[in-house]
Amino acid sequence: MPLKESPMAQKAVVLLSGGLDSTTVLAQAQMDGYEVYALSFDYGQRHDSELDAARIVAQRAGVVEHKVVPMSLRSIGGSALTDMAMDVPEVASEGIPVTYVPARNTVFLSIALGWAEVIDADAIFIGVSAVDYSGYPDCRPEYIAAFEKMANLATKRGVEGRPVRILTPLIDLTKADTVRLGVRLGVDYAATVSCYQANSLGEACGLCDSCRLRIKGFAEAGVADSTRYVG
Amino acid sequence: MPLKESPMAQKAVVLLSGGLDSTTVLAQAQMDGYEVYALSFDYGQRHDSELDAARIVAQRAGVVEHKVVPMSLRSIGGSALTDMAMDVPEVASEGIPVTYVPARNTVFLSIALGWAEVIDADAIFIGVSAVDYSGYPDCRPEYIAAFEKMANLATKRGVEGRPVRILTPLIDLTKADTVRLGVRLGVDYAATVSCYQANSLGEACGLCDSCRLRIKGFAEAGVADSTRYVG
Repeated sequence: MPLKESPMAQKAVVLLSGGLDSTTVLAQAQMDGYEVYALSFDYGQRHDSELDAARIVAQRAGVVEHKVVPMSLRSIGGSALTDMAMDVPEVASEGIPVTYVPARNTVFLSIALGWAEVIDADAIFIGVSAVDYSGYPDCRPEYIAAFEKMANLATKRGVEGRPVRILTPLIDLTKADTVRLGVRLGVDYAATVSCYQANSLGEACGLCDSCRLRIKGFAEAGVADSTRYVG
Repeated sequence: MPLKESPMAQKAVVLLSGGLDSTTVLAQAQMDGYEVYALSFDYGQRHDSELDAARIVAQRAGVVEHKVVPMSLRSIGGSALTDMAMDVPEVASEGIPVTYVPARNTVFLSIALGWAEVIDADAIFIGVSAVDYSGYPDCRPEYIAAFEKMANLATKRGVEGRPVRILTPLIDLTKADTVRLGVRLGVDYAATVSCYQANSLGEACGLCDSCRLRIKGFAEAGVADSTRYVG
């Protein structure tokens, strides 16, 4: 039997923070057959080690290209993740937490959209989850659907009837589901950094909201937690 | 008769390029009673003199604050306005021109949205026109409506039922209409720069698409063109 011709590879921009979720999404995008263009942001986050993790993840995954775009969200202020004058909370918070960066996913998706248009990508992947979403409004499916609609009114591709899709493979997954998915996809979580205040070695605090969710995720998935913690 | 109490001033973020349109929009926002927070971008544009113009316009208008956010759209490439390897066309173009910056309005509006959320602004003003829109898809009313809908799903304000509005006072205006409006509002157009390749003195080429539209606008409005041209 002759080999099937492989379909022409489709391109995808994958938003890659270097954390657990986006690293899993990158693996899923490659499993789905996309050529991956990884996009990270240097937005003045406290935890630079996240960016180091993103570089390692992108390199190991063999992406076509990895861009790190400088983005000074710090200049507009308003979040404990970018404003050094605010403390990152170490207790579980209710409602929209102070770690919420105003319009962050919208800004990141918009720049991804610009790059997607330049390289003529078919999809943009983002690792949001509406389940363990920490109270961020821009992680909900109705937000993603509205962004996709706007994106296809904004761009050449959309005007030409070749819409770009915003793909969110984790949207209905708990953190434990994501860990299970990542293990099936062969993701090495030891390289990833989720902590809001990881140190320069990439070691996690184990106390912030992001660490709590991650620890709970590994525990519920029954997967050994390879995260490196401080001390 | 007692004086009416003045309503509590509402805040607006105004996207200010330093060109004819955004300068007119800023004047309109102030006329509408908004406290203006002007937002400009240093996105590696060829024409830095546009930013100088924005600073002068913002200062003369007495805005509450003027931010210039560095935004390296050049890193994602794809437009003659940010890519030094591409020539700015000096003949009228058809369809979507090469000066189109991918997802530019989406990126700018997204960052404006983030700032609007931080300062709790009620509106974001942008000087797009669907009439003389140069073929850019992200200048159409259906795009603006989709952005507003997305914005109010993305943010705290939207979730709390206090939507932010995206206001486009020029959307149905020709360039001549805009010039007439600006003259009524007392705008001094000599300080503004529209040219895609203005020199460091802010002198316009008179040949690019943007200059052609501007020249035609002044002519049709019957207003003396105070633009400073090269040579």
